[in-house]
Amino acid sequence: MTASAPAQTDVTTLPSYIADQWVTPDPSAPGAHITTIADASTGAVTAQTVTDGPSCPIDSAAAVEHARSVGQRHLRELTTHERALILKNLALYLNERRDGLYQLSFATGTTSRDNLIDIDGGIGTLFAFSSKGRRELPNTNVIPDGAVEILSRDGSFVAQHIYTAIPGVAAQINAFNFPVWGMLEKFAPAFVAGVPSIVKPATQTAPVAVDCVRLMIESGLLPAGSLQIIAGAGRDLIDHLDERDHLAFTGSADTARLLRSSEAVQNRGLRFSAEADSLNAAILAPDATPDTPEFDAYIRILFGEMTAKAGQKCTAVRRAIVPSTLVDTVVDALAAKISDKVVLGDPREDGTTMGPLVSTAQQADVAAAVQTLVDAGATVRHGGGVPDGIDGGAFFSPTILSVDDARTPAVHDTEAFGPVVTVIGYDDRLTGDIADAIELANLGRGSLVASLVTNDMQTAATVSRGIAPLHGRLHLVNRQDAKTSTGHGSPLPVLVHGGPGRAGGGEELGGVRGIKHFMQRTAVQGSPDHLTAVTGEWVRGAAAHTVTRQAIDAGTGIHPFRKSLADLRIGDQLVSEPRTVTLDDIQYFADTTGDTFYAHTDEAAATANPFFPRRVAHGYLLVSWAAGLFVEPDPGPVLANYGLENLRFITPVSYDDTIRVTLTAKRITPRVTDDYGEVCWDALITNQNDDIVATYDVLTLVEKEDTTYATWGK
Amino acid sequence: MTASAPAQTDVTTLPSYIADQWVTPDPSAPGAHITTIADASTGAVTAQTVTDGPSCPIDSAAAVEHARSVGQRHLRELTTHERALILKNLALYLNERRDGLYQLSFATGTTSRDNLIDIDGGIGTLFAFSSKGRRELPNTNVIPDGAVEILSRDGSFVAQHIYTAIPGVAAQINAFNFPVWGMLEKFAPAFVAGVPSIVKPATQTAPVAVDCVRLMIESGLLPAGSLQIIAGAGRDLIDHLDERDHLAFTGSADTARLLRSSEAVQNRGLRFSAEADSLNAAILAPDATPDTPEFDAYIRILFGEMTAKAGQKCTAVRRAIVPSTLVDTVVDALAAKISDKVVLGDPREDGTTMGPLVSTAQQADVAAAVQTLVDAGATVRHGGGVPDGIDGGAFFSPTILSVDDARTPAVHDTEAFGPVVTVIGYDDRLTGDIADAIELANLGRGSLVASLVTNDMQTAATVSRGIAPLHGRLHLVNRQDAKTSTGHGSPLPVLVHGGPGRAGGGEELGGVRGIKHFMQRTAVQGSPDHLTAVTGEWVRGAAAHTVTRQAIDAGTGIHPFRKSLADLRIGDQLVSEPRTVTLDDIQYFADTTGDTFYAHTDEAAATANPFFPRRVAHGYLLVSWAAGLFVEPDPGPVLANYGLENLRFITPVSYDDTIRVTLTAKRITPRVTDDYGEVCWDALITNQNDDIVATYDVLTLVEKEDTTYATWGK
Repeated sequence: MTASAPAQTDVTTLPSYIADQWVTPDPSAPGAHITTIADASTGAVTAQTVTDGPSCPIDSAAAVEHARSVGQRHLRELTTHERALILKNLALYLNERRDGLYQLSFATGTTSRDNLIDIDGGIGTLFAFSSKGRRELPNTNVIPDGAVEILSRDGSFVAQHIYTAIPGVAAQINAFNFPVWGMLEKFAPAFVAGVPSIVKPATQTAPVAVDCVRLMIESGLLPAGSLQIIAGAGRDLIDHLDERDHLAFTGSADTARLLRSSEAVQNRGLRFSAEADSLNAAILAPDATPDTPEFDAYIRILFGEMTAKAGQKCTAVRRAIVPSTLVDTVVDALAAKISDKVVLGDPREDGTTMGPLVSTAQQADVAAAVQTLVDAGATVRHGGGVPDGIDGGAFFSPTILSVDDARTPAVHDTEAFGPVVTVIGYDDRLTGDIADAIELANLGRGSLVASLVTNDMQTAATVSRGIAPLHGRLHLVNRQDAKTSTGHGSPLPVLVHGGPGRAGGGEELGGVRGIKHFMQRTAVQGSPDHLTAVTGEWVRGAAAHTVTRQAIDAGTGIHPFRKSLADLRIGDQLVSEPRTVTLDDIQYFADTTGDTFYAHTDEAAATANPFFPRRVAHGYLLVSWAAGLFVEPDPGPVLANYGLENLRFITPVSYDDTIRVTLTAKRITPRVTDDYGEVCWDALITNQNDDIVATYDVLTLVEKEDTTYATWGK
Repeated sequence: MTASAPAQTDVTTLPSYIADQWVTPDPSAPGAHITTIADASTGAVTAQTVTDGPSCPIDSAAAVEHARSVGQRHLRELTTHERALILKNLALYLNERRDGLYQLSFATGTTSRDNLIDIDGGIGTLFAFSSKGRRELPNTNVIPDGAVEILSRDGSFVAQHIYTAIPGVAAQINAFNFPVWGMLEKFAPAFVAGVPSIVKPATQTAPVAVDCVRLMIESGLLPAGSLQIIAGAGRDLIDHLDERDHLAFTGSADTARLLRSSEAVQNRGLRFSAEADSLNAAILAPDATPDTPEFDAYIRILFGEMTAKAGQKCTAVRRAIVPSTLVDTVVDALAAKISDKVVLGDPREDGTTMGPLVSTAQQADVAAAVQTLVDAGATVRHGGGVPDGIDGGAFFSPTILSVDDARTPAVHDTEAFGPVVTVIGYDDRLTGDIADAIELANLGRGSLVASLVTNDMQTAATVSRGIAPLHGRLHLVNRQDAKTSTGHGSPLPVLVHGGPGRAGGGEELGGVRGIKHFMQRTAVQGSPDHLTAVTGEWVRGAAAHTVTRQAIDAGTGIHPFRKSLADLRIGDQLVSEPRTVTLDDIQYFADTTGDTFYAHTDEAAATANPFFPRRVAHGYLLVSWAAGLFVEPDPGPVLANYGLENLRFITPVSYDDTIRVTLTAKRITPRVTDDYGEVCWDALITNQNDDIVATYDVLTLVEKEDTTYATWGK
C-alpha cells in the first residue's frame, strides 16, 4: 500500500455506497489523493481508493444525515424480530455467494482456512444475532431491563428500566484483518437494535468489504438507509457524529487514542467503543506437564494462533506464559510443529498453509516490533524475519522469541501484529503456586482474552479470579474440552468481545448484550398505567379489562384464553372463582404425588417449622389448582403452557383457607416465522384475606388467528 | 470562597484521611496554598483547606497504593453479603449522629428540608445498597451474568459471563451540592462490589463530607483501606490512576471534559464515568390543562425543583416545556406560588424556606448565566438576581424566564445552576401532536432526567419513546402518582442515574447495576468443571456427587436434603427412582385439580394439537410428582421450597411414559443475618429415553447447622 500514488486507470477504483447510491470518485480528477492496494503475495496493484480531496464526491455529512433520517425511519417501522429475521435471510443470501468474496480475500494474503474465520464467521454472526434477537428479546422497540421496582407503598408509583435504540448512526471504523467479520459483527447487533450503520473499512482489505456490501445491497433485503460504506474517503466521518451516535473502532491502540481524543468524543457526547490489539496471554498451568493431553493442547493453541491469519488477529496469543522450567520444552515443541506443518506461500497455490501478511507496510511493522523485542533482551528461537527463498509479497516467518527476564516491559506492551509469540517463564518453584503467572498476565494492562490450560480445578478458579478483572474473555482448556473448544482467538457472537485498559475498554457482541450497546438504558418512573403504556407490558396495578367466570358463563364476557393474538390485548384479565382447601385435599395430594414432606402431613412438625402455621398445602397443589381455576378446557387459540417463571410462594395456605387466581395478559410476543406467538400471563394467587399467596408468570403459546382450532375435530 | 487567601489560624483546617491516618497540613508552612470556606448566609470564614503546595504532606500516590493493596485485600476477605451488611450497620450508626452534619450543612446554605435530601438521602442509599446487595446478588465475589451458553453439541465446552471487582480503587471527584449523598451514592455500590474508595470532595462543602467520613471511620465498621478522603489537596489524584481503577465524577460539563481528556483516561485505560449538570426538561402535555390535577402537579414540580437546594441540583428542571398558549398561565401560577411560599434567609432562622447559594462565586455564576439567557432573548418574568433587603450572603431570588423563540440555542445549553427556570412554548396547534415538545426536549443534547405530566397514556408512550434515547431517567406524573412520586429531581438508589451526551455519558446507581459499574464483565469459556470451579455455581455436565434412593435406603448414601449448609456442597446430587404415568393418573389429576384442558382429557383433540402426540400429563403433574420423587418427608435441614425459576417443558409426557428426576445443588447462598440460607437446585426431569422432559430451578431454604431440627417435636 502506497499513499498518494499516481492514479492507475487499469485497476478498480473502489466505490462508496452513500444515501442508497453507489458513488465512484474519479481518480484522475485534479487533486485526487490515491491509495493503491497491492496483492499481498505478488505485490501487483489490484485496486485503489480515492481519499478526501478537493474533487472527491463522497460526502460523510450526507451519509450521516441519511442514516439519521431515512435509515432510522425505515428501521423503526420494523420490530426487533422483523429486523432479526432479515439478518437470517441476508445470511442465507450471502452463503450462496461466498465464492467471490473468497477470491478477493486471497489477494489480501488469507488462506481458505482464514476465509472461514472471516467470511463464514461473519455470515455466522448474522445467523447468531437473528436467532438471539428473536429468542431472547421481546418483539417491540422497547426492551425492558430487570424487574419493575415498586416505589410507593400503595403501588401507585413504580419504575422500570428500558432500552431504546439510539437516535443516530452506528459508525464503524474497522481493522484490515477481518473485512467481513469485523463489519458484520458490528452491523448485526446495530441492525437488530434498529440503528443504521456506516462502515469505514481499512483500505488494505476494502475490496472485500465493499464487495460484501454490494451483495448485501443487491439482496434487496435491507431497508433504505440502513447500511452505507465509505471506501477510502470519509476521514471526516467523526466530525459529523454527536450524542445521538455510536462509533465502534477496531484497530491499533494508537488510533483508538486518536479517536478518543476527538472533539466528537470529548465535547459532543459521541458514544465510543474501542477494541484494540492487546498482548493476549496463554498460561500453561503447573499440572499440564509435557506428558499430559493438556500440554499438547497448549502447543496446538500457540501454533493455531501464530499461523491463522498469519497471526494478524487482535486476539492472537502474544505471550506464552509457562513454568520457567518448561520454556525450552515449549519452544522446541512449538518450533517442531511449525517446521512440520507450515508451508508459506501464495494462498492460491496448492499446499499453502500460511499466507503472507496483508502488505509490505505490515511486514515492515512486524519486523520492527521483533527488533524492539530483541533490543529489549528477547532471543529469537525460531524464524525472526522475512523468509528465505520467497521473492516478493509480504511474507514473514513464524517467529518464536523467549526472554530471560519475565518482567521485561517490552514483552508486555510491544505487539508484533503477525506470526510472533514470546515464551515467558513464570516462577513455579512453590508447587502449585501460580501467583507469578497471574501477575505476568496482568502486566498486559488489560487484554481481550487469555487462555489457561489446566486440568486442576483449583488452579482454574485461582487464575480465573486473578485475571478476570483485566480480561474480556477467558478460555479454559483441559482434556475434556480441548477438542470441542471454539478456540482461543475466536470471539463468538454470544460472548462479549473486548477488554479493559490497553485492549481499548470497549465491549462488543455478547448476544443481546451486544444489541443493547446500541441502545440507551433509561429508568422510567410513573404510575402503573404510564409504565404499561411506555413498555407495552402490563404492570400490576395498571388498568385491566377484567372478566369473571360468572360473566363468561353468562355470556357477557370472553375468557382471555378464547382470544387469539388478533384479539388479545395486554391487560385482558380473568378473575377466577374461589376454591377452599381441605385437609383431605392436602393429604390426598401428598399420597398421589408422593410428596409427603412433613409440612403437609405432620401437624406437630409442620407447626414447629418456622415458616408454617400448621399443616399447609403444597406449593405444587396451589399452582395445579390455579391452573384448574383459570383453564378453558375446550380447544381454542391457547395451544400449550410451555413454562413458568419467577414463581414465589409468599403466604402459606393451610386447610380451610380459600384461594383465587387472577390471570392477566402481561406480554404478547408474536413470532415472525410461526402462526402463533408467546403470551406471558401474570398469575396472582390470593387467599380469603386478599394476602398474596403466590405470584408467577405463566408462559403459553397462542395462535395468531383462531383458525387452526376451527379445523380440529371437536 | 477565595483561592490562595492568607492562612487564618482561628478557623478549622480540614484534615484528610489517608492510609488509615488523619493528616492535617500546616497552613502556616512556607508555600502553603490556602482556600477559605465562608458561611453561605453570613460570609464569615469558617474553615480552610490547604491545596497541593511544597509543604503539603498529603500524598495522593500513597492513598492510591494503600487502596490497591490494603483496601483491596481487606475487602476481598469479605463476601458480597458481608460487605452489604456493614453498610446497614454504618447507616444505623450515622442515623444516630446526623445532628452534627445538619449543623455543618446549614453553613453551606441548606435548609432542614435540603438536609433531608443530602444527609438522610445519603444514609438511605447505604440502606438501599445493603438490602439490594443481599437480596439480589449471590454471596460470593464472582457474580454470574446471564445464562450458561452451550458452545459444543456434546456440552463439553460451555461459557458463562461473570462480573469480578476491578483490582484498583474507586476514586470519586464530587460536586459541592451534595457533600454526603454525592459521596455515599458512589461509595456504597463500590463497597458492595469490593472496591476501596478515595473521595475528593468539592472544597465549598468539604467540611460536611470530612465530618461524615470522620463518623464512618469512628464507627469502626469499615475495613482498613476501604475509605480515604483527600480534602483540598490531591489535584494530582488522577495522575496515579490507571486501567485497574475507576473514576466517577459529578460536576460541571467543563470539568468532565478536562478529566476525560486526561492522560489516565486517554492513555492508561482508566474507567471514567461522568455525571454532569444538564438542561433537564419538564413537559406539560396538552391534556394537562389548567383545570386538571395534572396542571397543579406540574406547577408543584417546577416550584420544588427551583427552591430545593436553591436550585443547585444537577437534576433540577431548567426548561419548562409547555403548550405555547399556556406560557403565561404557567409563569403566573409559578410566580404566585413563589410569592406565596418562598421565605429567603439564613436556614438557621425560623421560617426560612429557601437558603442562599453555596458561595458568592456561585451567586456570580448564576447571575452571569441569567444574563447570558437574557442577552439571547429571554425575558425575566420573576426575580432575576440578588434579592433586595438581604445583606451579605450568597442569596439569589427564584427566577422565572420565558423566551419567544423556543429554539433559542442558549436556552438549551446554558445552565444557571440556581433557582432559575425558563418557560418555553411548544407548538400544539395540531391537537394532541406533541412532536414539537419531543424535539425541544432533545435539544438538551442528552439530559439526566425529564418529567412529563400527562394523564393521556398515548401521549405518555409517544413522548417517552421519543425522548428516552437521550435521557437517563423519565418521570411521568398524573393524578394517580402525583402524591406518591419521589420527585423529578431525586435520583433513587434502585434506578440508574446519569445521562448521555451533555449529561456526561455516565451511569451510576440502579441497584445491582450500580454495583456492577465497579466490576469487569468477562466471558469465561471452558469445560463444565472449569466453569463450576470459577463461578462456584454447579453447571450441568460438571462432576457431581451422586446418590440414588437405593443407596440412601441401604445406608450407603446421604440424601442431599439431609445436609445442612455446613455439609452441603454444590454438585451434591440425587437421582430419583422412576415412576410411570398412567392414563388414570392424568385423568385423576385433571379431575382433582380442575385442570381439564383438552390436551389431558380428549384424545382426538390432544392428537390434533401441533405439540402433543396424544393425551399428555399436565406439566403441573410432572413437577408435583418430581417433588414426590426427590422429597425427604421427615424434618431436616431443608425448611421450605419458596419458589421455582426457569421452568420449561421440553418433551411432552404421555401415558405409559416413565419419568425420573435428577436434583443437583447448584447455588448455595448463606444469609449473613439468619441461621439458614438459600439453596438453588438444578432439577432435570427425563423420560425413559433420557429425553429432557422439563428443566427448572427449585429454590429452598436450608439451615446452616442441623440444630433446629434436633429440637423439634418429632
